[in-house]
Amino acid sequence: MFESAALGRKCADKEYEVAMQQLRLRLFEAQRQCLTRKIPVLITIAGLNGAGRGAVANLLSEWMDGKHLHHHAFWFETDEERERPPFWRYWRQLPAAGEVGVFLGGWYGPAVRLRACRDISEEAFTSRLHRLRGLENSLAASGMAIIKLWLHLDKKTFAHRLKHRLAHQEVFHFTPYDKKTADNYEGLVEGISTAIRLTDRPEAPWTIVDAADANYRNLSVAQAIIAGMERAMRAQDAKAGRVALEKEQEHDGGSVQEGLVSSLEAIDLSRSKEPDHYRKELKKLQDEIFSLTYHAYRRGISSTLIFEGWDASGKGGAIRRVIGGADVRITQVIPISAPSDEELAHHYLWRFWRHIPRAGFITIYDRSWYGRVLVERVEKLTPREDWSRAYAEINHFEEQLTEDGNILLKFWLHISPDEQLRRFEERQQTPWKQYKITDEDWRNREKRDAYSVAADEMFLRTSTAYAPWHIIPAENKKYARLAVLRCYRDALRAALDKKPERRKDERAHNAVRPDDGRPKHKKK
Amino acid sequence: MFESAALGRKCADKEYEVAMQQLRLRLFEAQRQCLTRKIPVLITIAGLNGAGRGAVANLLSEWMDGKHLHHHAFWFETDEERERPPFWRYWRQLPAAGEVGVFLGGWYGPAVRLRACRDISEEAFTSRLHRLRGLENSLAASGMAIIKLWLHLDKKTFAHRLKHRLAHQEVFHFTPYDKKTADNYEGLVEGISTAIRLTDRPEAPWTIVDAADANYRNLSVAQAIIAGMERAMRAQDAKAGRVALEKEQEHDGGSVQEGLVSSLEAIDLSRSKEPDHYRKELKKLQDEIFSLTYHAYRRGISSTLIFEGWDASGKGGAIRRVIGGADVRITQVIPISAPSDEELAHHYLWRFWRHIPRAGFITIYDRSWYGRVLVERVEKLTPREDWSRAYAEINHFEEQLTEDGNILLKFWLHISPDEQLRRFEERQQTPWKQYKITDEDWRNREKRDAYSVAADEMFLRTSTAYAPWHIIPAENKKYARLAVLRCYRDALRAALDKKPERRKDERAHNAVRPDDGRPKHKKK
Repeated sequence: MFESAALGRKCADKEYEVAMQQLRLRLFEAQRQCLTRKIPVLITIAGLNGAGRGAVANLLSEWMDGKHLHHHAFWFETDEERERPPFWRYWRQLPAAGEVGVFLGGWYGPAVRLRACRDISEEAFTSRLHRLRGLENSLAASGMAIIKLWLHLDKKTFAHRLKHRLAHQEVFHFTPYDKKTADNYEGLVEGISTAIRLTDRPEAPWTIVDAADANYRNLSVAQAIIAGMERAMRAQDAKAGRVALEKEQEHDGGSVQEGLVSSLEAIDLSRSKEPDHYRKELKKLQDEIFSLTYHAYRRGISSTLIFEGWDASGKGGAIRRVIGGADVRITQVIPISAPSDEELAHHYLWRFWRHIPRAGFITIYDRSWYGRVLVERVEKLTPREDWSRAYAEINHFEEQLTEDGNILLKFWLHISPDEQLRRFEERQQTPWKQYKITDEDWRNREKRDAYSVAADEMFLRTSTAYAPWHIIPAENKKYARLAVLRCYRDALRAALDKKPERRKDERAHNAVRPDDGRPKHKKK
Repeated sequence: MFESAALGRKCADKEYEVAMQQLRLRLFEAQRQCLTRKIPVLITIAGLNGAGRGAVANLLSEWMDGKHLHHHAFWFETDEERERPPFWRYWRQLPAAGEVGVFLGGWYGPAVRLRACRDISEEAFTSRLHRLRGLENSLAASGMAIIKLWLHLDKKTFAHRLKHRLAHQEVFHFTPYDKKTADNYEGLVEGISTAIRLTDRPEAPWTIVDAADANYRNLSVAQAIIAGMERAMRAQDAKAGRVALEKEQEHDGGSVQEGLVSSLEAIDLSRSKEPDHYRKELKKLQDEIFSLTYHAYRRGISSTLIFEGWDASGKGGAIRRVIGGADVRITQVIPISAPSDEELAHHYLWRFWRHIPRAGFITIYDRSWYGRVLVERVEKLTPREDWSRAYAEINHFEEQLTEDGNILLKFWLHISPDEQLRRFEERQQTPWKQYKITDEDWRNREKRDAYSVAADEMFLRTSTAYAPWHIIPAENKKYARLAVLRCYRDALRAALDKKPERRKDERAHNAVRPDDGRPKHKKK
């Protein structure tokens, strides 16, 4: 794989000056176009030690418009990162529309180094790589330009440079596995080979750069970045074309709706009756949940609860009853309405990643990422190719939320159209509920069939083993609240009954601050 | 101070039901008005152990619209918090316009407990309280409703409840000083007395709640919150009136400009000549800075550099030269242009707090918080009372940035009007610089006098001992760049020469995770 990148090709200074001047103009121009077109650009600079990753990163600041370029290095995980799924730290730094994010090492750096020193198994390594491919695919499909660079050296040059850097005390190790792999050429090359094999895809290809000669390396890097940005622009144009075509065809008569077995029609709403002893039962469940969530907090088990369902199906009331149990000090409710402009400038999952709970904490989403395949689909706010891709994206996301024994519960509160009408009218007549009912609610009600179809497809495609849907008959509010609380109580019990897994993986490493790395805090 | 709050007043259940129902409606209505008026509401719930802080917090979720209410408890500082000024953790959680933030313990909880167990000195405690008063004053002036509650018990009830809670295993300690102060009634009361004395102000008053009886307590809490929100609404109306009046008066002829000695006119621009050996000197300075910033990184000394100055004075070029020295892996450039909608929904300093560097890292602001007293003043984007208050707010902010030996450098790049014209014309003629020059730049140029007055007042009011202004003659770009780099190099040297202070304070405590507190990470 690396033969052609270890030929030691060179570029003389004079040629370099001429070629670089042209490339810089093109690079600058491509960046400006991406800014105008609102394309986020993600540049990963990975490579062997001594191949010049830092130098290249510094050059990019010089070549490109630094106002829209941000560098990120991923050394130690902070507490806040370590207590969330591993990808959280990357999501929070992803470039916004029009911005350039330069990831030093990116999500490959730590993984490849860990694998090189055999601190993660082959299996864990490849499973992580498969995930990364999925993530890159999703980001690219959402319009991001993804450029991945591996700066390569042949073994002799690598050894030579290491010797030179050691002699000049230029070797800094920011993480323990940096140190362990500093001279492990074979291990690093084996690791990156696997990584490239599994993640080199047309929408996010790797560029292997022959980095022995700085001039040649710089030219290759600039070319690869220009090519990547141009690729994203072509993809944007192509997509615009497809979307226009889709609209046209819909106008011509619309696509035929495929038949689906309806999950909602199968729900027996008559089960949802006024419970006997509601207050007593509610109190008991809330007390149980209070105690269980406290234990979960101590064990570091987080809970994510999401509430979807028809308008006026009682989501807010059910959420209040959950909070009535769980301690508000460890609980956050995130209502999902129109995104902020910062959220709009990112992948649609970014705004949900922002709020996912730390170990032991609870986040409740009042409406959720399923808006992508419900309202955005029905109201045609999002092209079909985007919302239809979302099922898989959501499944991957939820898989990460449920790992390490964490809890994810998805509730759909179900009511009949008649009951909904009754509640709408009640809201209109109750002074302090009036603000809850808007013209939009009435319009949505008209579209119940379209929403039903969307909901059914959603249940079908996103009811996974690790995150099944709970469809709650909610014709009676009290019945529904108790059902939700019972479901959460049982999930907490099950999670606490499990033996905590104690996996040896990279996170344990990242938790340690070695002497030569990040500073100890100044106070003793 | 607490006599009247320890009378053990009660409210029978029947009266409570009636009174509460009315209060809930008023509370709900006040919250809706704050939402409409975009008033952020900050509720601090502090109090003695066992006085029902958690219960009150949970009730607020029930009484108010939970979609716009967020609870925050401040237990351990995370890595990310500990490596920034102590107030950072509060700033990042402040409620946005229209939202309600409930701070459990708020910024008083930890301070009072630390003082109660004598883990901070009287001096450190009062100095922190003075700061808090300043912060609350600034937040209130920016339109925030600030409600501060202290839930009080008499000593006997306190002791009785503690005994009961211990017997029922209901005592949880989230931080070590929680544990140490659990039964220290006198210490806590002494601490909060001092706190109330120093921070009880009309714009952010304390309400001491007699909390022995839950009913009476809840009514008092609801009343205090309603009163606080109504106070903020009145303040908003009053301010709107003042601002309208100011506009009218300006229209009538404008206010007379007070005379100020001009700092800028005193600058000798002829000093700014083409340096001999520019390239060599630049390389040398960048190498020095590379090495010094690496040492600063290891010592946990952060750097904040801000660049202000005339349009086309060479801010971008100077910043690129600094980055050319510092490693991009520890450096962030934050260009300041129009705020995002999330930023607009907060106090104007919030968007700068977001990006301040962690220990050892470097943040460079390309334009800064001084926009408040420059462009916002000159273009009349902000009422006089707001920008004139900003000098003190900025001084407090910068004081925090420079504590613990951290570096803050403020550069003003100064050029003559003639040189500016030359550069504007050059930009228009250079294809890849054209994007840098807009109609706005020409308009700003017309207003040089007004900007000079604003800049002069800024230098006068914000040149503090800990953060002086560096006015750089920038008629020659190369001269200016070297001057900036030299200044940064010298600051790094001075900071590294200082002996690191090792203060015993609450932060060291917060760094420890006791056995009964936050979970250890699950992996061993």
